[in-house]
Amino acid sequence: LNVELINTGSELMLGRVLNTHQQWLCRRLADLGLVVTRQVAIADSSAEIKNAVAESLARADLIITTGGLGPTSDDLTRELIAELLGKKLIQDANVLRDIENYFARRNRPRPAQTRVEAFVPEGAMVLQNKNGTAPGLAMKIQSNAQSPKSKVQWLVMLPGPPRELRPMFDELVAPLLKRELVAEKFVCRTLRTSGIGESVVQEKIEMELQPLVLRGLEIGYCARPGAVDVRLSARGANAKKIVAAGEKIVQKNLAANIFGFDDDEMENVVVKLLTQKKKTLALAESCTGGLIANRITNVPGASEIFRGGIVAYSNAAKEKILGVRAEILKNFGAVSEAVAREMAVGAREKFGADFSVSVTGIAGPGGGTVDKPVGTVFICLVSESKSEVRKLLNVWERETFKQVTAQQVFAWLIRMISA
Amino acid sequence: LNVELINTGSELMLGRVLNTHQQWLCRRLADLGLVVTRQVAIADSSAEIKNAVAESLARADLIITTGGLGPTSDDLTRELIAELLGKKLIQDANVLRDIENYFARRNRPRPAQTRVEAFVPEGAMVLQNKNGTAPGLAMKIQSNAQSPKSKVQWLVMLPGPPRELRPMFDELVAPLLKRELVAEKFVCRTLRTSGIGESVVQEKIEMELQPLVLRGLEIGYCARPGAVDVRLSARGANAKKIVAAGEKIVQKNLAANIFGFDDDEMENVVVKLLTQKKKTLALAESCTGGLIANRITNVPGASEIFRGGIVAYSNAAKEKILGVRAEILKNFGAVSEAVAREMAVGAREKFGADFSVSVTGIAGPGGGTVDKPVGTVFICLVSESKSEVRKLLNVWERETFKQVTAQQVFAWLIRMISA
Repeated sequence: LNVELINTGSELMLGRVLNTHQQWLCRRLADLGLVVTRQVAIADSSAEIKNAVAESLARADLIITTGGLGPTSDDLTRELIAELLGKKLIQDANVLRDIENYFARRNRPRPAQTRVEAFVPEGAMVLQNKNGTAPGLAMKIQSNAQSPKSKVQWLVMLPGPPRELRPMFDELVAPLLKRELVAEKFVCRTLRTSGIGESVVQEKIEMELQPLVLRGLEIGYCARPGAVDVRLSARGANAKKIVAAGEKIVQKNLAANIFGFDDDEMENVVVKLLTQKKKTLALAESCTGGLIANRITNVPGASEIFRGGIVAYSNAAKEKILGVRAEILKNFGAVSEAVAREMAVGAREKFGADFSVSVTGIAGPGGGTVDKPVGTVFICLVSESKSEVRKLLNVWERETFKQVTAQQVFAWLIRMISA
Repeated sequence: LNVELINTGSELMLGRVLNTHQQWLCRRLADLGLVVTRQVAIADSSAEIKNAVAESLARADLIITTGGLGPTSDDLTRELIAELLGKKLIQDANVLRDIENYFARRNRPRPAQTRVEAFVPEGAMVLQNKNGTAPGLAMKIQSNAQSPKSKVQWLVMLPGPPRELRPMFDELVAPLLKRELVAEKFVCRTLRTSGIGESVVQEKIEMELQPLVLRGLEIGYCARPGAVDVRLSARGANAKKIVAAGEKIVQKNLAANIFGFDDDEMENVVVKLLTQKKKTLALAESCTGGLIANRITNVPGASEIFRGGIVAYSNAAKEKILGVRAEILKNFGAVSEAVAREMAVGAREKFGADFSVSVTGIAGPGGGTVDKPVGTVFICLVSESKSEVRKLLNVWERETFKQVTAQQVFAWLIRMISA
């Protein structure tokens, strides 16, 4: 199947906003077994939109557009697509009522121009918008009904704001696509690993997975700083069995490195594990500068398990707030095993937490020496019974250095909490 | 001029990676006066790449491709484009030497397959890659030299990794495009504001800018949570004068809300101002959970001005580490003006900093009450001479709530430091 995405938005073309729809939709579609074949982004201009949609209609089985459904003068998608397909726009009483209710709940009068959002191309399916006013639209297109080449296409129009688009896709579009477009059963499972390179991951599983590959298993890898994903998928009646058998092999061979599945992020796994075990965490960050605390506190419910952290960016802070001894700082330097250990112990005590982690290193670009080059990091994990330090060398530019170091901390923490 | 971007990468189509090239290149091109008309992303498949490039060649004056220049079997861009344009690939001795030097500097043997990276389509300009092995390539294409419709097109191929692509674009491609494609002088200036909505920004400047608009000034707005950009641009001989006159008006009417220009991010401005004034900063974060510290420490040189921060996510931490009095916590609650004030004062003292900021609020989704709904935030700024608190209501989902609150903190901090 050919699947094409069309994102409209003049701000995209000026680079003023980042297009996150592409990644989000591609991943969701891939999980349904629908791999996107082309992504197009264009300005909010009628000529551009018409050309792009017409071109996609000539190629694709499924077209998803985002944006251009709102009430302002640069929202053109609905009208242009109706025109292109020769469909009339008809006011839909239910949609109008939904829009009126939306504003009534907020004690605001309905702005007159939202009226256009209630117009629906004839025959289109309305996708209710729980988080905004413009509904999505889905159209089934039967081209050349008389010809032997006749085929069915689907065109889905989604609103631009992510908080409207995402729930609408998950609740309404995914089930529709599964029903209408995914002929064969499709099963997909992603196993997320850390602390191991892509080629080693491959080496450890590929041979043993070969018999399953012959039965239809597809294996995909995705390497990012600090994590490698293994994606197993299969189609057809035996898809579930084949993927399950593949997962078993990957689990067995990579057990120590698997931190989660599918959409799991490391910080979510940390919060989930600590919540299950009713344990708490404290942090002492130097070179990661608050990134680890920030990621932990992005997870709803983090306050149940996260006591807090200290970003000890100066030696004085390490000494005064974390209780690192002055002579240790002086003798070993701020980036050292001894200081990492005292930082973690200090944080655990100060916050009264079950687990604590400290990180001290040289993020760069400045500050490196021959003995301790830019990228040197010491990580210390302390629990009631243990205190362990690791020394790593993460040679990346500053922000990636912080991200990679955070990944290593999370991966290690997950193993320690699980143990 | 028609400008098209083509990003290749199968991982893009599976949604495993975020496409950041589009935004980055669109912004850089817009600053040269070249607005991208279409962005296309496709898998690393020869059919897809050939189709996409052929279609763009039929429309565009400038085509920029990213990715597919490496040495592996799915790097197809160089070969396919040479084939499409009927150009031979010729080994370039200088490129081969550059690649050999690249590995020699790292004390590693040159992998044999990197040899393909030294092949250059005849007539192509080589764009040296200082941060990797595959050079970029720029081709000037004269279509139908005999016909009156003859036109010149440029096709630029860039490597996929951002740390290779970005410096190559800035150092080699931007000057080339300026020289070859930007016929008219183009001047562009972005003024970045905060603490004020898009419609108010517009109201405060549009009328007064009208005479300049008649002389060719273009005004663009971009609103994001916590910040609104005003982009002024003009073309032609008077461009510089017109944009400068526009900037003067915007400066006058929005002075208090402007925090920076062009690529300035708030955290960079904070670090720059503190460095200039030789002042230091400390943080006490509750609901932002380390995000502010994280953003500050993303800025190279932050260690000169940032003493550190405390992520006081529990009441015990607020009391024990920041010295917030128990009775204040009990009487007013953790999310209150009084607690915000004691947190900021505590952080300033503990870290011995000139300025301190505290943030306490309810990020949600849980934890709201009738008096203090989800989104309630108290921010306190303390300097040697002042202590001020603001109460805000930021109703967004959790991560956006944190981002918006951080923007408000930075904006306020910038004004306080500048004062």
